Amino acid sequence: MTDANRQIVLAEIPQGKLASSHFRLQRADRPVPAEGEVLVRTLYISLDAANRAWMQGATYRSALSAGQVMAGGALAEVVESRVPELAPGDLVFADTGWQEYAVLRAKRLAKLARREPLSHLLSVYGIAGLTAYFGLIKCGRPKHGETVAVSAAAGSVGSLVGQIARIMGCRTVAIAGGGAKCALLTGELGFDEAVDYKAGDTRRALRAACPNGIDVYFDNVGGDVLEACLFNMAEHGRIACCGAVSQYDGAPPAHGPRGVPGLIVTRRLTLTGFVVMDFDAEREPALAQLRSWVDSGALKVREDIIEGIENLPAALVGLLAGENVGKRMVKVV
Amino acid sequence: MTDANRQIVLAEIPQGKLASSHFRLQRADRPVPAEGEVLVRTLYISLDAANRAWMQGATYRSALSAGQVMAGGALAEVVESRVPELAPGDLVFADTGWQEYAVLRAKRLAKLARREPLSHLLSVYGIAGLTAYFGLIKCGRPKHGETVAVSAAAGSVGSLVGQIARIMGCRTVAIAGGGAKCALLTGELGFDEAVDYKAGDTRRALRAACPNGIDVYFDNVGGDVLEACLFNMAEHGRIACCGAVSQYDGAPPAHGPRGVPGLIVTRRLTLTGFVVMDFDAEREPALAQLRSWVDSGALKVREDIIEGIENLPAALVGLLAGENVGKRMVKVV
Repeated sequence: MTDANRQIVLAEIPQGKLASSHFRLQRADRPVPAEGEVLVRTLYISLDAANRAWMQGATYRSALSAGQVMAGGALAEVVESRVPELAPGDLVFADTGWQEYAVLRAKRLAKLARREPLSHLLSVYGIAGLTAYFGLIKCGRPKHGETVAVSAAAGSVGSLVGQIARIMGCRTVAIAGGGAKCALLTGELGFDEAVDYKAGDTRRALRAACPNGIDVYFDNVGGDVLEACLFNMAEHGRIACCGAVSQYDGAPPAHGPRGVPGLIVTRRLTLTGFVVMDFDAEREPALAQLRSWVDSGALKVREDIIEGIENLPAALVGLLAGENVGKRMVKVV
Repeated sequence: MTDANRQIVLAEIPQGKLASSHFRLQRADRPVPAEGEVLVRTLYISLDAANRAWMQGATYRSALSAGQVMAGGALAEVVESRVPELAPGDLVFADTGWQEYAVLRAKRLAKLARREPLSHLLSVYGIAGLTAYFGLIKCGRPKHGETVAVSAAAGSVGSLVGQIARIMGCRTVAIAGGGAKCALLTGELGFDEAVDYKAGDTRRALRAACPNGIDVYFDNVGGDVLEACLFNMAEHGRIACCGAVSQYDGAPPAHGPRGVPGLIVTRRLTLTGFVVMDFDAEREPALAQLRSWVDSGALKVREDIIEGIENLPAALVGLLAGENVGKRMVKVV
């Protein structure tokens, strides 16, 4: 059974907190591509808070169900191709799911230029980097000298948002959990201030860190932190609504944050929700900009790479608990 | 004491629901203008849900305090002028407060062109009309054929929003309280559908009225109706956040609507708060457009005019209970 395909199945939809026990490892036959399809081998599988949201119900994709191979995006290499556009060895990013091999319709696959380290194709040049870039620039619209706050600031997206805002001449305020992360954020990642939301009164701590208010808040978490930011927004402030990780790992919340819509009106705020696919048409110039920042050293890329497909469940559970700094992924081979 | 000035004082800041007993009538001397000031006589005093919000705390203006003459905007006529730009008989709109006479700094007063009926200067050509116009067009950005929903649809702003959206080729859905109002809205005011939020499951009723979702929601009320709309928004929908009248008459709410930020992200919604003063620079072309619609009969102006300054408290209490259709004001003389 050398051709076997190891897969991680979502055995049960979690009702409360996600645990590794909601998954199981199984072996299947390696699938065979038909005309118009390719067989790919996954190299790096991306871990994202959104993985958990997909278990709660329909989002921008249909909900997951028990018994299916866990969904997820990966950097993958073509092994066998039944289309002229792709050849063995080509790299693609695709929703392969959590497995070693996948057969995919070739139609919507875009070939990625090989670039070392390969992991960057999943972090700064992948969804995380483009999400940070488009969310900040298109929805946040920061101006030089403004104050930009970002939650989950040590995460894959947040760590890039803060650095891009700094490159754009903004004052940057990180919101993260724990003193160690906060020290890393104001140290290595160059944020001007960091607020530890686990340390107590976030609203007050933000007021101290943002005496003139927050002009742009990049929200990855929703919930209490969003509420604390709403109460600290400057007039005509903008909130880029990227995600709500505080609300994914359990039942959907019974209430939204206070200040909606009262503070939105009186401070004339704009909240804009987005998903990165909305900006596909502007992908290439964005990637060129990100590459130039990385090449010049202006943008530091933090990655958190775990080895072994069998570690995917624990890697996701840990990501939801906030244990990673930078982009978390699992190296399959 | 023929020179007396009757005033309505906010005697007490309400903790729960506002009642007429929170106000008292007093007589003061008629004030005398100094250099740079004018003495005006109030003709029509505007009643607005925002009057109640000002009692809750600082909004886009500072909070009201007990013992002061109640704040409020009015159409007023200059009686005596100590500036060259204004003469007796000139009309102005100003924050005179609830009194027969007021002395105002002339600097920020804009002379209004006299136009009959004068009450229109306080409704369709006043804050209500401009709020409806700018909120819908600048924040809602409706496109021909889209579905536009508006709450407090029978109110001063809502009744104009629906009609303007219809003129722009949109399908219009009113949200209002009670069957009589709903009948008026789909009848005389030309809405395509009306949803009675007092009749029960608003979320479900909206789903039936908006089978393709709501593209633009003009929110005057916040709270449960905002939540019901959030769950019915179409992808890339826009919410113009104008007010939160459901939340003004009592203690500030303990929670916001569900779906924030989850639905904002997954449906890529934009929520934009505004106050009409933000668009002062574009006032004249907006007024010209409104005049042309009124003159052609495309836009019907509903007004609810109550006589006598002593009736101001009851008029505001009744407005907060939703008893008016169209712009409510008190005719002072």
